[in-house]
Amino acid sequence: MQTDLQIARAASKRPIADVAKRLGLTYDQILPYGHDKAKITHEALAGLSGPEGRLILVTAINPTPAGEGKTTTTVGLGDALNRIGQRATICIREASLGPNFGMKGGAAGGGRAQIVPMEDMNLHFTGDFHAITSAHNLLAAMIDNHIHWGNALDLDTRRISWRRVMDMNDRALRDVVVGLGGPANGFSRQSGFDITVASEVMAILCLARDLADLQDRLGRIVIGETRDRRPVTARDLKADGAMTVLLKDALQPNLVQTLENNPALVHGGPFANIAHGCNSVIATRAALRLSDYVVTEAGFGADLGAEKFLNIKCRLAGLAPAAVVLVATIRALKMNGGVAKADLGTEDAGAVREGCANLGRHIENIRSFGLPVVVALNHFDGDTEAEIAALQDYCAGQGVQAILARHWAEGGAGAEDLARAVVDLAEGGAQFATLYPDDLPLWDKIETVCTRIHRAGGVEAAPGIREQLAAWEAAGHGRMPVCIAKTQYSFSTDPSLRGAPTGHVIGVREVRLNAGAGFVVAICGQIMTMPGLPRHPAAEVIGLDDKGQVEGLF
Amino acid sequence: MQTDLQIARAASKRPIADVAKRLGLTYDQILPYGHDKAKITHEALAGLSGPEGRLILVTAINPTPAGEGKTTTTVGLGDALNRIGQRATICIREASLGPNFGMKGGAAGGGRAQIVPMEDMNLHFTGDFHAITSAHNLLAAMIDNHIHWGNALDLDTRRISWRRVMDMNDRALRDVVVGLGGPANGFSRQSGFDITVASEVMAILCLARDLADLQDRLGRIVIGETRDRRPVTARDLKADGAMTVLLKDALQPNLVQTLENNPALVHGGPFANIAHGCNSVIATRAALRLSDYVVTEAGFGADLGAEKFLNIKCRLAGLAPAAVVLVATIRALKMNGGVAKADLGTEDAGAVREGCANLGRHIENIRSFGLPVVVALNHFDGDTEAEIAALQDYCAGQGVQAILARHWAEGGAGAEDLARAVVDLAEGGAQFATLYPDDLPLWDKIETVCTRIHRAGGVEAAPGIREQLAAWEAAGHGRMPVCIAKTQYSFSTDPSLRGAPTGHVIGVREVRLNAGAGFVVAICGQIMTMPGLPRHPAAEVIGLDDKGQVEGLF
Repeated sequence: MQTDLQIARAASKRPIADVAKRLGLTYDQILPYGHDKAKITHEALAGLSGPEGRLILVTAINPTPAGEGKTTTTVGLGDALNRIGQRATICIREASLGPNFGMKGGAAGGGRAQIVPMEDMNLHFTGDFHAITSAHNLLAAMIDNHIHWGNALDLDTRRISWRRVMDMNDRALRDVVVGLGGPANGFSRQSGFDITVASEVMAILCLARDLADLQDRLGRIVIGETRDRRPVTARDLKADGAMTVLLKDALQPNLVQTLENNPALVHGGPFANIAHGCNSVIATRAALRLSDYVVTEAGFGADLGAEKFLNIKCRLAGLAPAAVVLVATIRALKMNGGVAKADLGTEDAGAVREGCANLGRHIENIRSFGLPVVVALNHFDGDTEAEIAALQDYCAGQGVQAILARHWAEGGAGAEDLARAVVDLAEGGAQFATLYPDDLPLWDKIETVCTRIHRAGGVEAAPGIREQLAAWEAAGHGRMPVCIAKTQYSFSTDPSLRGAPTGHVIGVREVRLNAGAGFVVAICGQIMTMPGLPRHPAAEVIGLDDKGQVEGLF
Repeated sequence: MQTDLQIARAASKRPIADVAKRLGLTYDQILPYGHDKAKITHEALAGLSGPEGRLILVTAINPTPAGEGKTTTTVGLGDALNRIGQRATICIREASLGPNFGMKGGAAGGGRAQIVPMEDMNLHFTGDFHAITSAHNLLAAMIDNHIHWGNALDLDTRRISWRRVMDMNDRALRDVVVGLGGPANGFSRQSGFDITVASEVMAILCLARDLADLQDRLGRIVIGETRDRRPVTARDLKADGAMTVLLKDALQPNLVQTLENNPALVHGGPFANIAHGCNSVIATRAALRLSDYVVTEAGFGADLGAEKFLNIKCRLAGLAPAAVVLVATIRALKMNGGVAKADLGTEDAGAVREGCANLGRHIENIRSFGLPVVVALNHFDGDTEAEIAALQDYCAGQGVQAILARHWAEGGAGAEDLARAVVDLAEGGAQFATLYPDDLPLWDKIETVCTRIHRAGGVEAAPGIREQLAAWEAAGHGRMPVCIAKTQYSFSTDPSLRGAPTGHVIGVREVRLNAGAGFVVAICGQIMTMPGLPRHPAAEVIGLDDKGQVEGLF
């Protein structure tokens, strides 16, 4: 059997200018990066007009070690929509460089449903994340430089929340002291590094409408407080203009292609833990102008990813999906039904039925946004007829179609049934509404998401949280949506609690204001913003083979 | 009068594929980055054969605040050579991103002698420096990760010399403590960040012949010592393969063009303070295969830049220049003759004559390598006939032509006389020899450069230096050339000592082994490897104008 990498390398790629032409873009409207990648220029983006296509969100049940294949399904559905005569574009997020050197790395789909060039996308790609790193760290350098030269803004060096970033898994940088070595090196203070995808700059890039909006948002970033507790922004430090210059190319969406030569925009990658976790608004909007259908995905399971996609990205960008595809696998349903990973090879239709409780909860949640939903069963070779029937019976009982999709093995041809079901659903119309209005108080927004989506029996605030939220409301930030940061493995804050738990209590231990991105983060449980490398990092086996091709990255 | 930026923006650029075609490269042999930048592929590089053109080195008198215009002259000479019927390619180094946000930024030439696209070249360009940052910091992360997971190599955490890098002027990162925060974050130790151009990875990229040589050199990097004082290399940590993967695209030289649409390879940028300071070997070699003439430059004045170019780059790469152009300006000669910057507007032929002592010293030095030399007088509007005559008289006395060159105002047309003189010199033949043989002991190499090039009366070693050098010789590193790190403003270690001082003593206070790059650094005086931002950084005024064009960067 061929590996994903072998399939990707054997791809018959078309010149990226041809892929652009299929979208109606001329060569002047793209900036090529090699022969198989390009950016769509700001000028071309500004000139897009005409009707928008339909937006399809692909999301999934809670993730398990068994794998669900959300990206694979996103790609397969996009290819299938093209096969049945729709002009469809895929929108997914970019991969983070650092983690590839820890565990074997993140491909862009799998099997016959992949986006290429896979190696470039998992390395530097078009340099967007490096630009974000530079912009973020320029602001950090300007903060310490401001203090060094006299601290005219009276920054409280104990209350600087802006850290530095690096696109690397490097635990030694989580907590550092900077400014050691004497007066020439500035004032010492404790700080640290996050991974680049966790930067607020990343979240901002993904929500910005255009360059002007980007600069506005960058200027609003709150980097810390003065001694008398007034917030200090990037604009106060005059950093917003230079940060925008560093990001001007990165804001242009990246065009690549699927194995079947259909267009894919791969752009942005906000950390799904503490940000909204979906690709950029600018790419999604461009794709909608250029296509009948846009297939996109949101990070983690539907309770985290779809919720943030709908309540944050769609709200802030004025987007409305036409339908939702909920991806499940028999294997993941069995794990949700209590089967251990080692036992997944054994047929167990009963466990599938048990695990469907998790699926059902997500179906209910998606419907609560007024959206039609279809279940995509991402087929694995070991799935048995009885197990598949168990899932289909369950879905029938919920009034939802469950479509067997074989895109992993067959490419777009294997997902044509799914594509037709999606078109039917989307044509039927949706009454999308976000879960809460802008003017609900911040704490009530948190409670609403935790009780109605995560089905908590109670939501508890650590001391000071409610006061902090009230202070932000008083400062004019009350209309922002909230971004719930919690484990992706469970509806609860206990990652081992699979299925459809109820009655659990969610504790909010910290809140953070992302004034530039435009949301308030509620942290429930531990959040890691700088990963570490494992005992035997993938970096030890990554290298070039005799032909100069990358080994060990996938 | 138009600014450099206005001239650059008004350039009539040709599609980069056309520029490549002039070099005989097909579209498949380049990787476009936008419409005006490209990389030459590894495959194309491997296929280059046929005779090599002639290599012309452009260097200068000791730099002063008046400016000399070495890059401007490099570009003007390249354009002029093309005008007189030679196929000439320009090879210069890439600009560092970080410093552009401190002081107003580094252009690529000036006036009518520029390389474009200037803005991209001063921002992310094709991402080479970001790749170097990633590769450097991956090794750093793997070091701390190795220690965290048990330290099987028995690394002495007090003797780790490998720091981290960032392409940013950020003094707060010069000295830091990493690994704070408890067991999950690793072992605490003191370390720091250098600017990316100071990375040994940068020096290695610029000296590597191909990908295999790159990986060999990366593997040889010494990152520190074990508790029993044995050196530990990047290969011991199995980091060399992954670092090579991160650098595989960056090793491909970048093709851009001059205002007159002539080809320029802009590639690599090793710190001229503690490395060899010239563009990549791979770019220079490629250009030689593709052209009759290659015009390149070396950092700082000839005593530092040309010396390192000849004794390090040419030695390690087997290159031999055909002729040297020594750039001088009337203004800089007057400063070398004792005139203050504020008084440069006043005619002073006597000061020019005085300052020529500096010029004469460099002429002697260049000749000591067996190389023919011509002086290029980079013309400024205020230069008077008497001042120009003073320079020309001096040069005539030395048996050297001094050619008035007006490329800044007139482009290549203004440097045709210079181009013809260069062709004459180069056709006359050179007997290039490095200053010292490989098998001279390391200390003797240092002494040779300091006494014969910098004309020191004595060279003193700080305690332990000679023992360290002897230890490296015993470990097999004795055949390496030496890289003298000292002020660029004077032949001495006193930056205020202009002209042609003699009898000064040069003190070597530290030596560093760059086992991967392949040279030993002798540090004489203070060396800054991480700059800081000034009180009012350029970043405060950098931004986009209404048309989306960059303001404040130049």
